[in-house]
Amino acid sequence: MSAAPHTEREIQWTRRHLLGIADLSREEIETVLDTAPQFAAVAKRKSGIKKVPLLTGRLAVNWFHEPSTRTRLSFELAAKRLSADTLAMTTSASSVVKGETLHDTLANIEAMQADIIILRHDCAGAPHILAASHTSHVINAGDGRHEHPTQALLDAFTIREHLRRKTGNPEASLDGIKVTLVGDIEHSRVARSNILCLNKLGAQVTLCGPATLMPARVEEMGARVCYDLREALRGADVVYSLRIQLERQQHGLFPSIREYIRLFRVDHDSLRHAPEDALIMHPGPINRDLELAADIADGPRSVILEQVSNGVAVRMAVMHLLVNYGGAV
Amino acid sequence: MSAAPHTEREIQWTRRHLLGIADLSREEIETVLDTAPQFAAVAKRKSGIKKVPLLTGRLAVNWFHEPSTRTRLSFELAAKRLSADTLAMTTSASSVVKGETLHDTLANIEAMQADIIILRHDCAGAPHILAASHTSHVINAGDGRHEHPTQALLDAFTIREHLRRKTGNPEASLDGIKVTLVGDIEHSRVARSNILCLNKLGAQVTLCGPATLMPARVEEMGARVCYDLREALRGADVVYSLRIQLERQQHGLFPSIREYIRLFRVDHDSLRHAPEDALIMHPGPINRDLELAADIADGPRSVILEQVSNGVAVRMAVMHLLVNYGGAV
Amino acid sequence: MSAAPHTEREIQWTRRHLLGIADLSREEIETVLDTAPQFAAVAKRKSGIKKVPLLTGRLAVNWFHEPSTRTRLSFELAAKRLSADTLAMTTSASSVVKGETLHDTLANIEAMQADIIILRHDCAGAPHILAASHTSHVINAGDGRHEHPTQALLDAFTIREHLRRKTGNPEASLDGIKVTLVGDIEHSRVARSNILCLNKLGAQVTLCGPATLMPARVEEMGARVCYDLREALRGADVVYSLRIQLERQQHGLFPSIREYIRLFRVDHDSLRHAPEDALIMHPGPINRDLELAADIADGPRSVILEQVSNGVAVRMAVMHLLVNYGGAV
Repeated sequence: MSAAPHTEREIQWTRRHLLGIADLSREEIETVLDTAPQFAAVAKRKSGIKKVPLLTGRLAVNWFHEPSTRTRLSFELAAKRLSADTLAMTTSASSVVKGETLHDTLANIEAMQADIIILRHDCAGAPHILAASHTSHVINAGDGRHEHPTQALLDAFTIREHLRRKTGNPEASLDGIKVTLVGDIEHSRVARSNILCLNKLGAQVTLCGPATLMPARVEEMGARVCYDLREALRGADVVYSLRIQLERQQHGLFPSIREYIRLFRVDHDSLRHAPEDALIMHPGPINRDLELAADIADGPRSVILEQVSNGVAVRMAVMHLLVNYGGAV
Repeated sequence: MSAAPHTEREIQWTRRHLLGIADLSREEIETVLDTAPQFAAVAKRKSGIKKVPLLTGRLAVNWFHEPSTRTRLSFELAAKRLSADTLAMTTSASSVVKGETLHDTLANIEAMQADIIILRHDCAGAPHILAASHTSHVINAGDGRHEHPTQALLDAFTIREHLRRKTGNPEASLDGIKVTLVGDIEHSRVARSNILCLNKLGAQVTLCGPATLMPARVEEMGARVCYDLREALRGADVVYSLRIQLERQQHGLFPSIREYIRLFRVDHDSLRHAPEDALIMHPGPINRDLELAADIADGPRSVILEQVSNGVAVRMAVMHLLVNYGGAV
Repeated sequence: MSAAPHTEREIQWTRRHLLGIADLSREEIETVLDTAPQFAAVAKRKSGIKKVPLLTGRLAVNWFHEPSTRTRLSFELAAKRLSADTLAMTTSASSVVKGETLHDTLANIEAMQADIIILRHDCAGAPHILAASHTSHVINAGDGRHEHPTQALLDAFTIREHLRRKTGNPEASLDGIKVTLVGDIEHSRVARSNILCLNKLGAQVTLCGPATLMPARVEEMGARVCYDLREALRGADVVYSLRIQLERQQHGLFPSIREYIRLFRVDHDSLRHAPEDALIMHPGPINRDLELAADIADGPRSVILEQVSNGVAVRMAVMHLLVNYGGAV
């Protein structure tokens, strides 16, 4: 790969698809994290030429069967910064309304010689089914309540970069750091992928939220559960606030917004129980002053916008690894 | 045209627009089919660089006044693989909602120095009116019940490529082959363009479907009409299943879905009357197990996904011929 | 800037954002108008390669919080002709439906290292707020009833180019020419930006329309108000018809369409009071035969389609100036 930016060591990667963190070894996760910095640097080039010719002439198809803005744009931008061509399909514009099956739609995309199919779908497992029968590289961009692997990778990358800057140690890892996820754990694919990813990287995960929004037996995934926010924040290196889906409240899954805010909002008041330099993270979009106080989201501890920037770089790394190292289509 | 892939013989082409198969001579149809293989090869390049610089800096505008996914994406991809820039307009996002006329919308697209305008419209003849008064190259991507010329061209290309592979004869043509179209002939622009195209190429066309969905005097177009599917399939080299519009049933145009399936579905049962090696085709999207049995659609005789792949190549050929040989805009 | 087309004199430009004509000096407006012709020429290149590598690898994000086709496509095309990458967000596909604030959405776009954010928003002042707190270059593509600066710039460019062609004087300016704007002045950001722009360039502006659609104290902006169309058209070098929003009529702001047409339509009848060679302009889309007679819109005096073509060139000029001369992001 003559066009690749220089890398310090040989890349080890053979995986063809990115379906979930559950499939990845610690080494694979670290390969993604080690590959991302060069792409983060591309977006900050002084020349303004924020792209590299690593996927020139390749085709990446974004197929979003659920509405999304930021994830879709992040993937589209990642593909364009790798010089790939992109096509976008969303449900409303799609033949799915005419009764076409998911399988047929994807077979059609593949028949157009797509190299990468980025799929968001409301059915858990949809990308896995596709990957089993299709030859394009499939990236799971969120499947039901199951996984959202690139979100967890960009979150781990954001924490690691911060640790390395803070400690001055370019080899600093997530081993032993404490991450507290706060909010609706039950319905969150972001939480699920993050628990898996953080565990594999050696971090200690604490989950906090209303009991009605906490999955049964989640401790078996290797996380500590804590229903008291103050206790959950104690000693946390990272406080990760999840988005509350307001419609859940109508379904009776939490008592009232006022009650939720009083017990679980990440704000100045609750953060008095966390270390002063704890990082604040959120996958976006934020319900300001609901799950997360606006001044905290915009404050000096917050790395929320770094998550967005890093999202593009990590997705570039994933696409590059899948296509250029993950075997021919 | 220094950048063009090598062609075996001089290209003869002067047409500026592709409005319908009705306008084309057999020689013109064959020029498209002869130009497409080089573009089919581009999409399969081992290097992964699936594009050629034949329309660099040109602008192709996709204007879809009817919803569509696959045709729109196929044209967009064809333009991108020729290195053109693309703009997309769909009705819902368009000024047409504000009461702008078709003519005004297209005049505006043209004023942006569009080289190619790809138009899908629910009014038969819309592209013809535009081509008469506009200087961009107009491609009809489906106009009402009238024509869908690129579909017929990609279908003919798919049959011809298959014949050539099967016979080992690189000059094999459609002369004398038997093609049976099954379904709703009356409302199908795909059927209409295919009847015209297959006739011009010397194939024998049989039409089969409910009498309520068969146009009056369709035999005058040079097709045989047959209301018995078993008889219609006898001796067919190609069985082309058309999409049933379920809403027609509500309008009383066919008695019931159960009845339709019993009499006209292409499935293992009915195909016992066709030759064993008859090709199965469908323009997509398929109503699985309604007009076409799912196992047949996915079976070894089916070339439905080849149609999709070939669609991109044939559309690349059409755009290349119109812009690079069809006279300056 | 080695890649820039040659320019006759040194470009003077330091502005980072284009928020409104109100901010611009006469010199700045003229710099845009002087930069645009080279880009108009790019779109007419005989080679067909209608792009220049001035923003290669840069990212332009089109964020339209109000529906629009032509303005959105014009900006997208301008960015592509400068070789920038583009991302498009529209309200319906956006997280704004999930309750995200404007500020958050834009912060996210910026975190993706967007170089240019093109914003259309129904709130007057939205782009100004963003520009104050964001580092991307912000272009106002229409904010409420406030301003639509690129429309005014392309209109001034269209008038100036026409004057220069007509007089044969390559230095002809708008000084002293008479422009009459006809229609709904009150609700029109196009009118507002044009009044400001034309005044700064030394033109004399007359406003004509129903008293109910005329803003209070508009004379203070330096325009003459006239309720009689015949008088308003007398001596006009340019007759600029504004789009009537039909829904205003339902709100009682003008008596009836029939009455509006009788008193204020620009047509053969009313134009007998204007000079024979008066230019006819309209920002589009036209309500044909309502505010402007169809035969006039399509007639020899009309430069409406030149406005569209020039729109792309002027927007290319604006993006080039902001990014390449307006200071690093």
